[in-house]
Amino acid sequence: MNDVIQTILRHRSIRRFKNEPLTKEETDQIIRAAQAASTSSFLQAYSIIGVTDKAKKEELAELAGSQDYVAENGFFTVFCADFSRHHTAASLHGQDIREAVESTEGFMVSVIDAALAAQNAAIAAESMGLGICYIGGLRNNLESVSSVLETPSHVLPLFGMAIGRPAQQHEQKPRLPQETVYHENTYNLNSDELKQQLQNYDETILQYYRSRSSGNKEITWSSQAASTLAHSKRLYLNAFTQEKGFLKGRP
Amino acid sequence: MNDVIQTILRHRSIRRFKNEPLTKEETDQIIRAAQAASTSSFLQAYSIIGVTDKAKKEELAELAGSQDYVAENGFFTVFCADFSRHHTAASLHGQDIREAVESTEGFMVSVIDAALAAQNAAIAAESMGLGICYIGGLRNNLESVSSVLETPSHVLPLFGMAIGRPAQQHEQKPRLPQETVYHENTYNLNSDELKQQLQNYDETILQYYRSRSSGNKEITWSSQAASTLAHSKRLYLNAFTQEKGFLKGRP
Repeated sequence: MNDVIQTILRHRSIRRFKNEPLTKEETDQIIRAAQAASTSSFLQAYSIIGVTDKAKKEELAELAGSQDYVAENGFFTVFCADFSRHHTAASLHGQDIREAVESTEGFMVSVIDAALAAQNAAIAAESMGLGICYIGGLRNNLESVSSVLETPSHVLPLFGMAIGRPAQQHEQKPRLPQETVYHENTYNLNSDELKQQLQNYDETILQYYRSRSSGNKEITWSSQAASTLAHSKRLYLNAFTQEKGFLKGRP
Repeated sequence: MNDVIQTILRHRSIRRFKNEPLTKEETDQIIRAAQAASTSSFLQAYSIIGVTDKAKKEELAELAGSQDYVAENGFFTVFCADFSRHHTAASLHGQDIREAVESTEGFMVSVIDAALAAQNAAIAAESMGLGICYIGGLRNNLESVSSVLETPSHVLPLFGMAIGRPAQQHEQKPRLPQETVYHENTYNLNSDELKQQLQNYDETILQYYRSRSSGNKEITWSSQAASTLAHSKRLYLNAFTQEKGFLKGRP
């Protein structure tokens, strides 16, 4: 197993960092890594905002649900779907790109582009001995996040990533069994098999939560997943994404 | 610069592979790497379908727009947004998760989860000396792709990834300048600055396309991006995603 795969397999989210900014060399390397990712039709339909201003970091920490490590870390980044730049590009050629940008396909292209870039940033950072944590919590209040970051139309902040020198170590959380996530040739529709796999995995996760060094709880994967999804949240995004110029295509 | 960052920065899409299947050890490592990625609220809302059946690979190659390398490679994978498994999980606990799964937030969670996993798979494969190419072309006809792969409701194939021992080498395509993609604290709204950056980059890309060892053309980034987006495609996805149980939330 080579160093790259070891780095990838060692991942765990870090939620406490030394409050020391990364060097410019470190942040440059992370951004370069992000930009090296594949991108649909070479569109590069994303932007990365590096938040170094202390007051802004604290505001975002609050918006993300009082997650201290959003403010206290080495580098806080926000990955955004971005077609604003493409509107400018199109204007140089007298082209109208609204329909594409507003379509479901357009949304998928930009979200996927941003996510691939982000995952490269994450692996690069982890290879440098840094820890990372994706911050979906920004989606609690993207309207305010957009204000803080002054993002225009056709730019949608998707998630943050806190990066820094780790100030905690903890165990990895075991993933679903491969046979649940990976299907050969056709999607495995065997419901009894799936239930059995989930019941076994529930036991694995229960043991993990009981025995990990902190944050112990009595919960299984399926009950936690069910509970997370039963309480629909962020329904305001159905409308807000449209206000920012995404997902406006009529079916 | 460590091996991991070197691997990441060396990426280029490969579009010709030796038609030899990867070993089980290789494919296992790639799937394990995929599963090690971060996932929103630990939902792991994605599936990976490995297509080894020759007839299916040829069918998908046709659907993707006659891209031979979709059929001829070492391993062809399709990454899917997946909440089907969560419906099963929720049924074990008598919970109703439809609203969350149908919301824009739900779509974002599952698409991002799948993309992070895919990018890990890509980097892992490249670290093993393999080449990869994301296949967005599957979205030309997701209805047929879903038939071939027998994916149920609440599962949406997003893109493919062809992986294999490279049978070509070529130059890397230069990315947008960092100052265009990366913003400090607030989104850079300076339109004149952006136009200047795009004009410089257009020159870079024009030179790249003129001088690369094959596939030469006379085109700039901004005209190609504008042209790609001016011809809206895959508008059927606006409705199709809804048919599969995604993006049904009323704004």
